[in-house]
Amino acid sequence: MKQLSHYLTAMRDQTPLVQNITNYVAMNVMANVMLAAGASPAMVHARGEAAEFAGIAAALSINIGTLDDEWADCMVLAATAAAERGMPWVLDPVAVGATALREEVAARLIALRPTVIRGNASEILALAGTVAQGSGADTGDSVAAAEGAANRLAIQTGAVVAVTGAVDFVTDGRKAAHIAIGDPIMPLVTALGCSLTGVVAAFVAADAPFEATVAALTYYGVAGEVAAETAHGPGSFQVAFIDALHAMTGDALDARARIAGVCSPRFVS
Amino acid sequence: MKQLSHYLTAMRDQTPLVQNITNYVAMNVMANVMLAAGASPAMVHARGEAAEFAGIAAALSINIGTLDDEWADCMVLAATAAAERGMPWVLDPVAVGATALREEVAARLIALRPTVIRGNASEILALAGTVAQGSGADTGDSVAAAEGAANRLAIQTGAVVAVTGAVDFVTDGRKAAHIAIGDPIMPLVTALGCSLTGVVAAFVAADAPFEATVAALTYYGVAGEVAAETAHGPGSFQVAFIDALHAMTGDALDARARIAGVCSPRFVS
Amino acid sequence: MKQLSHYLTAMRDQTPLVQNITNYVAMNVMANVMLAAGASPAMVHARGEAAEFAGIAAALSINIGTLDDEWADCMVLAATAAAERGMPWVLDPVAVGATALREEVAARLIALRPTVIRGNASEILALAGTVAQGSGADTGDSVAAAEGAANRLAIQTGAVVAVTGAVDFVTDGRKAAHIAIGDPIMPLVTALGCSLTGVVAAFVAADAPFEATVAALTYYGVAGEVAAETAHGPGSFQVAFIDALHAMTGDALDARARIAGVCSPRFVS
Repeated sequence: MKQLSHYLTAMRDQTPLVQNITNYVAMNVMANVMLAAGASPAMVHARGEAAEFAGIAAALSINIGTLDDEWADCMVLAATAAAERGMPWVLDPVAVGATALREEVAARLIALRPTVIRGNASEILALAGTVAQGSGADTGDSVAAAEGAANRLAIQTGAVVAVTGAVDFVTDGRKAAHIAIGDPIMPLVTALGCSLTGVVAAFVAADAPFEATVAALTYYGVAGEVAAETAHGPGSFQVAFIDALHAMTGDALDARARIAGVCSPRFVS
Repeated sequence: MKQLSHYLTAMRDQTPLVQNITNYVAMNVMANVMLAAGASPAMVHARGEAAEFAGIAAALSINIGTLDDEWADCMVLAATAAAERGMPWVLDPVAVGATALREEVAARLIALRPTVIRGNASEILALAGTVAQGSGADTGDSVAAAEGAANRLAIQTGAVVAVTGAVDFVTDGRKAAHIAIGDPIMPLVTALGCSLTGVVAAFVAADAPFEATVAALTYYGVAGEVAAETAHGPGSFQVAFIDALHAMTGDALDARARIAGVCSPRFVS
Repeated sequence: MKQLSHYLTAMRDQTPLVQNITNYVAMNVMANVMLAAGASPAMVHARGEAAEFAGIAAALSINIGTLDDEWADCMVLAATAAAERGMPWVLDPVAVGATALREEVAARLIALRPTVIRGNASEILALAGTVAQGSGADTGDSVAAAEGAANRLAIQTGAVVAVTGAVDFVTDGRKAAHIAIGDPIMPLVTALGCSLTGVVAAFVAADAPFEATVAALTYYGVAGEVAAETAHGPGSFQVAFIDALHAMTGDALDARARIAGVCSPRFVS
């Protein structure tokens, strides 16, 4: 894996147009996060244009957070278009274990071979067919408990699987990395996980999926640590976090990650 | 009524999973407000899962802000499921007097016996069948002018009715309380009223409706006063407000409320 | 044209109720921006009430950002109601060149004679039938390159056309103005362009379209310059910008605009 700054710079140089089909809660902050990072987000989900737009985008992210039948169909249309073009796309299976509708839609989408699947521990356990303890968008399981499920899911689907939490875990079924960076206040700001999925999509537009995912998660966590230095609570954290994503240079990313010990991810098996 | 800190602590100890069917404008800030307060919000509204999710939630809030026929049906499905389970649910009848659609949907929902109804003066007057002066989501009437209507509505429906404004009024038709706390800039930040409805739902998940509603409104107003001390306008107020909701301890809440004279709400008849 | 403060004061004195049919990404920030400016925004788009609500509003804004067939029909219903009442309405043709659906919907709406059309250079070029280089919501063209297209579009449609970017251009086909004010960080905050459309609608509710549009754009740009003085990135810029819109007095607007050289817009032809 190259220095982290390589992946950030490659993404910014491309300013990838990323189509996002995401939930209502996340749309605004996700767009701001992606703009701050250096991508060009577009929230395009309608039946009449989701597939057509996938023809001009550089990557696609799909998040099932606020779901209904119409949206589910549009997600399938866009993911099908992405798969046909060989365009990378990232799946965020929000609260997949909570209702039958979510399980069914997630299964339809996974059949369309996402490049990356990013979820919390409960979601990844649910996707891998394990009984999970999450409810709603929050997780009741630890990342460590989901590592085996993540590896199995990666092998079954061919996707890079990222389990995010206090310590992130990324695997493609053959190699894996842990990323222990970020701040405990991050789960108290809504849609930061959803927004991360968009950032992963932007990085994956420019580089190989496993390395790009590791770089995106590390960049995100480092920005979280920078933001926490000045924040007074979840409100000011969100503001400082967007500022930090924007201000982060490649050099600062490499230096911060080295201090935190994540410059050389441990690769497993 | 116990000390206010009791209700805040009870809610936080439970971290209630609150299902919210709310408007597009409010979703993000409502989720952030509820997370900062200590609840676990989930925005779940689809026909295919609204009722199922109501089976795992601890409380439900329904807000008719951005309404259409499909959403109205899902609101009815979720409220029906809540009523069947005996789960508390809170209705926010946004702009109910403005159009025929809103009146009709509000009537369908009130028939499902909400635990609490929270609105501004114009909305409560409209629900009680009085000609109101509001338009859109803003009120043209004073809370004082709506007290009689609120009492009638509480008796008719069995709900606790909260009229919020410069001075809030809470009634169950037998006892009532005034809460004079908050900051005049709050109506200039969109969706703070909607978000309050979610906080009321979280408190009502843990305690008796009248007392929990009084406690939620007081907590909210106290956080508003704290935020106003550092804010420079509505933008920085929102940020400081979310920080204040999160930082507020039970002791700080009791002390602040005592200084403001709301530690012992005046109970009327 | 009168002093800029005249238009700001006239809008604030009226506190116009502005109906907005806008995209999911923009709804929250647009409401906050409009409240901070002094208007009364209402996000009302449902088939069952869009036209009825247009009967009580003072102005309407329509933004095609997150579009589907149902929303397109509601936009047409509301614009038809506005046109019948002679109520001013403003069209924001987001990403109009990107998909066939957007072109078709924009054509239906333009036939209903918007009072003002506000877009970026690529959108105005696309509307005028010129090949544009934009993708998604971002522009790939300069405002200067779109001036001819804007003039043609204004003559064809009878609308005031505003092309916004580093230097804004406003034309009614006979007279035109350039407005060189604002800050380069503004395109990195999502939905600030969409929100501006709502502010234009509020100003147009109170004054003649060309002058009101010039005043709204100048007020917006001046607030952007004020915000940039304290912001550290796009996150803190959004917060400071909303504060600045709210704090701006008529005198401060006139003084700032004079310093920036926009107190007397250059009228062309």
